[in-house]
Amino acid sequence: MVELDDVLRAARRLEGVVHRTPVLTSKTLDADVGANVLMKAEALQRVGAFKLRGAYNKLAATDPEIRSRGVLAFSSGNHAQGVALAAALHRIHATILMPADAPASKLEATLGYGAELITYDRAGEDREAIGRRLADERGLTLVHPYDDPLVIAGQGTATLELVQDTGPVDVLLAPVGGGGLLAGASTVVRALCPDVRVYGVEPEQAADTKLSFEAGERVEIPFPETIADALMSTMPGALTFPINRERVDAILTVSEDEIVSAMRFAFERMKLVVEPGGAVGLAALLAGKVPLDDAARVGLILSGGNVDPEQFARLLASA
Amino acid sequence: MVELDDVLRAARRLEGVVHRTPVLTSKTLDADVGANVLMKAEALQRVGAFKLRGAYNKLAATDPEIRSRGVLAFSSGNHAQGVALAAALHRIHATILMPADAPASKLEATLGYGAELITYDRAGEDREAIGRRLADERGLTLVHPYDDPLVIAGQGTATLELVQDTGPVDVLLAPVGGGGLLAGASTVVRALCPDVRVYGVEPEQAADTKLSFEAGERVEIPFPETIADALMSTMPGALTFPINRERVDAILTVSEDEIVSAMRFAFERMKLVVEPGGAVGLAALLAGKVPLDDAARVGLILSGGNVDPEQFARLLASA
Repeated sequence: MVELDDVLRAARRLEGVVHRTPVLTSKTLDADVGANVLMKAEALQRVGAFKLRGAYNKLAATDPEIRSRGVLAFSSGNHAQGVALAAALHRIHATILMPADAPASKLEATLGYGAELITYDRAGEDREAIGRRLADERGLTLVHPYDDPLVIAGQGTATLELVQDTGPVDVLLAPVGGGGLLAGASTVVRALCPDVRVYGVEPEQAADTKLSFEAGERVEIPFPETIADALMSTMPGALTFPINRERVDAILTVSEDEIVSAMRFAFERMKLVVEPGGAVGLAALLAGKVPLDDAARVGLILSGGNVDPEQFARLLASA
Repeated sequence: MVELDDVLRAARRLEGVVHRTPVLTSKTLDADVGANVLMKAEALQRVGAFKLRGAYNKLAATDPEIRSRGVLAFSSGNHAQGVALAAALHRIHATILMPADAPASKLEATLGYGAELITYDRAGEDREAIGRRLADERGLTLVHPYDDPLVIAGQGTATLELVQDTGPVDVLLAPVGGGGLLAGASTVVRALCPDVRVYGVEPEQAADTKLSFEAGERVEIPFPETIADALMSTMPGALTFPINRERVDAILTVSEDEIVSAMRFAFERMKLVVEPGGAVGLAALLAGKVPLDDAARVGLILSGGNVDPEQFARLLASA
């Protein structure tokens, strides 16, 4: 398991490395939902998403001798950038496996941090198997995108900052792909916010965690089709699933159109660029899908903003 | 004249009313320009621009009996929203004169704050004359968009927060339309930052302030064509011009394409929506037009983010 102490240790390692991102509010949104919504703007984080937190925490806690041989990650994009930057900050070599169809901005940014890039076919190849083989062959440290206690603890620091800066929340919403962000977030609020209700949010079309919650065990789904490229997991993590089962009340799902509406809301009313996977919590809230009861304070992680302007324009035009 | 004390008084009136917006940084930008660039994100301000500051300060300092008869403003959009919200917060009636071709989002938002809207033809009619006549007829307090000491002092609070939160700057960049934001900004940094150099930035196609600086007196230009709808002034203000002449080192200009490039940079690298008029300072910096010499710290006001997603997409596609 991962506990609050692990997140507090991660926060100390990340001090001065990650931005303490602002918590944004919207009077329009508050009036609409009847609660005070506190949005942690991790789109404004370095690399444009929360992923530097977990990656940097992992590398900082790894034995320097082992770490110096280099690191490897497989990722749909944001984790790739997080590991690439974390490696650059530690002055070590990073090898990144990315799907060939990842957004151009994510591929370019990863190269920009000096990482070596290897692309694969997202629908056809098993990235985890390729990654583990490469790591073995080259003696590299694998930085898993979610199934690692140090990665989970690092991601938890976003929620820790939210609670430290604004006080306890009654409801917490976080996106769920592999489940690392949600596991870190739920660990923090269960420890710090009495009676909190925690919801993970994922696309209807990538509902592996919701189905797994219902089945009571990890369920694998076919390769999902969703605009939320950051949440295209086919199965919850072996480590994240039991944590989330224990600490998360329910998994909510949102449609593709609801995601686009939330991206539009963030652009128009908050002046913030949020990528599809980063907007699912806001989407659930705007669609009236979150059981708020008499919650007064709702925390929400806007987890990333890595979307090309052209892709953004196409998404808004199509919805 | 307007002095630092006026801005400090405004800051006290605005406490708890305006957001203390974050100061954003970009490692990419810093590496590109060779200085630490501190960007005050007033796009994240209530109403999506700095304009609530001046409008609220004006109303808060106006005799309640006179104020209660209602207020009037003429504006290309952001000031309209600022006055509409400031009036709503004071529970008084607001009449707003807006150009019929203002962005739909700005018209809608102004209506949304409960203001009465009167539109006019931007190219053909004299909004100032219409506004003054209406104010006289109805006994309304006119909230001028820039030529008012209380409005200038209010706008200065954005720069005051920037300096308070990050320390003195060596260079300050602010957009200039009528000149209210620049007058407030230059007043603050001249008082608080020894040896600062202050630059106003405007579109090449709306260079009334640059031409006036060169002529040594206020020069009127034909109605300008620029994507920066917030900076379409035809002549500097009678009050703002002498302040800026005394406190501003020079006026820089940027092309329409340079403005769009800056909007793209803000979207892609900073995840921030910035409207054309709000992006001119960043545009000047990215285009290498700012005489930086050995400046280590550059302050910059990203003054607004009120641009429709569709207009944003068209602008980026055309550049």
